[in-house]
Amino acid sequence: MASLKDVGERALVDRVVNSIRRSPYLGPGDDAACIDVNGSKIVLCTDIVTFEKHMVSGMTMEEFGWLAAAVNFSDIASMGARPLGILAAVSLPPETDEDRLYEIMKGIDRCSEFCGTAILGGDTKSGPGSVCGTAVGVCDHKVLTRGGARPGDLVAVTGGLGAAGAGWYAALNGINDKDALRAAKLPVPRVKEGSFLSKNDIATSCMDISDGLSTTAAAICRCSGVGMDIVLEFLPKGKGVDSVCKKLKMDAVRLMLNGGGEYELMFTFPESKLKMLHSSDIDMSVIGKVKEGSGIDLIAGGSAVTMENEGYEHFTKG
Amino acid sequence: MASLKDVGERALVDRVVNSIRRSPYLGPGDDAACIDVNGSKIVLCTDIVTFEKHMVSGMTMEEFGWLAAAVNFSDIASMGARPLGILAAVSLPPETDEDRLYEIMKGIDRCSEFCGTAILGGDTKSGPGSVCGTAVGVCDHKVLTRGGARPGDLVAVTGGLGAAGAGWYAALNGINDKDALRAAKLPVPRVKEGSFLSKNDIATSCMDISDGLSTTAAAICRCSGVGMDIVLEFLPKGKGVDSVCKKLKMDAVRLMLNGGGEYELMFTFPESKLKMLHSSDIDMSVIGKVKEGSGIDLIAGGSAVTMENEGYEHFTKG
Repeated sequence: MASLKDVGERALVDRVVNSIRRSPYLGPGDDAACIDVNGSKIVLCTDIVTFEKHMVSGMTMEEFGWLAAAVNFSDIASMGARPLGILAAVSLPPETDEDRLYEIMKGIDRCSEFCGTAILGGDTKSGPGSVCGTAVGVCDHKVLTRGGARPGDLVAVTGGLGAAGAGWYAALNGINDKDALRAAKLPVPRVKEGSFLSKNDIATSCMDISDGLSTTAAAICRCSGVGMDIVLEFLPKGKGVDSVCKKLKMDAVRLMLNGGGEYELMFTFPESKLKMLHSSDIDMSVIGKVKEGSGIDLIAGGSAVTMENEGYEHFTKG
Repeated sequence: MASLKDVGERALVDRVVNSIRRSPYLGPGDDAACIDVNGSKIVLCTDIVTFEKHMVSGMTMEEFGWLAAAVNFSDIASMGARPLGILAAVSLPPETDEDRLYEIMKGIDRCSEFCGTAILGGDTKSGPGSVCGTAVGVCDHKVLTRGGARPGDLVAVTGGLGAAGAGWYAALNGINDKDALRAAKLPVPRVKEGSFLSKNDIATSCMDISDGLSTTAAAICRCSGVGMDIVLEFLPKGKGVDSVCKKLKMDAVRLMLNGGGEYELMFTFPESKLKMLHSSDIDMSVIGKVKEGSGIDLIAGGSAVTMENEGYEHFTKG
């Protein structure tokens, strides 16, 4: 018999999906589920963040609350949906000072406000310290999934890469790099960007980079039945990555490829939409191209190496 | 500074509601939240069940999964909504045998199937053993809340009382009472009943009895600004209550008034609807009447005593 940590989160999800009845709706398997209610496409997702795994060194309870909300709104954004609200189930040890609960809820509320929504409900139970958030949204236009990338499409990401990872290491090592710390503690769910990509029928696939670029690229390729060329020189470096990596003698490229906690969006789109994207105020960079097949090649200095899926995996790593 | 266990769950919920912005929607404060999406009333709720607090002695993982789903579908039912599906975020220790995860998911799936729905999505993380479920539903008719009871309304409950509590003690003490054990391990969410009460505009208020009858009555009275007379002789005794209480020398009345894990519905309705209820196949009993004021009196043998709110409270008890 295998344990959860022997199997790893991604294989577990596959096996769970095989052990239950097939849902008549989109998802499980995507960032969020989508159900049709009287013609409205309701998008739902749930994600747990825990003190043990997600607490950045020196993080306040309010920042932890923001993070818990952001990871969920990010999943709504990656489906191209408009957020409507969030439910928050908080587990804390019974000895916890009550103010810590209110601080967490305030952080969730702030992030909800940033996303134009509110806390709809919740639950509190005793536990070792976690927030299970469930965000709900509605998609008025095209639902973006991991499965629509087509050969010839361009590959792009919003914002910069590696900043959240750099912030995690900066916090651990007492380096006061504001940009990197902010990226790790207060990630911005790309709600505006996701809506734009859906509303204007731009993206053929979309997913958030919560477990690192390499993992996200692998998931889109697997779900779409395609391969990708990613050009190393095109990867947009996040703020603070260089300075933190220099101080800690870390490899910035590894961080950009495999750093988790990013919450930028990775998406694919036909070249014909490039002009519309460039004339918008969406902060994004084209980083590669979708191709036939299944492998992901990283092009650096004109030569290609296979890009391994080395992002974050729960249970087995980290 | 006070700790969570000093304050107790109900006061914490009140203080949390005061520490965040007011939601434009119904809830927090009711069994579930209700949001309007393009004219559809979408109902959402989230509830955590933990190995520590909710695992009945000798319970299988599949039964635990059923319970985790049932408590959430029960909240949907109490709003008079039709369930659409559930998201399940499962926390388990990394050393857990993987089969236990699949068994939990199978239990959630079975209960979802019973409620005419499916698992929409989820998450898995390491933790001490819990399921955070989020159920979603839609209300095509009247949304039932805790706040609509009016003086003169009758008070009723579905099913029988005390069976789940009796089952909990039976399991602890190795008493093989099938009815009581089933009530504790595989509670039935009253989805059909909740829908009926909403569709036929019967109930003026409704809430599930998850924390015991006395707590539920107190909540309805508080939210509606009314009092109640509950007639002890009218309380329907759940199956197995007498035999388990006899064996364990326990007070059946205490169990019926304060036993948790019940998941029957308590509701109020105008007397004019009694005929319609009696001619339906809804299994229910009238147990009292709503009155002006705020107290709850328990009428026994013609004399009245104040009914104390002694149901289950998280953090401080249990």
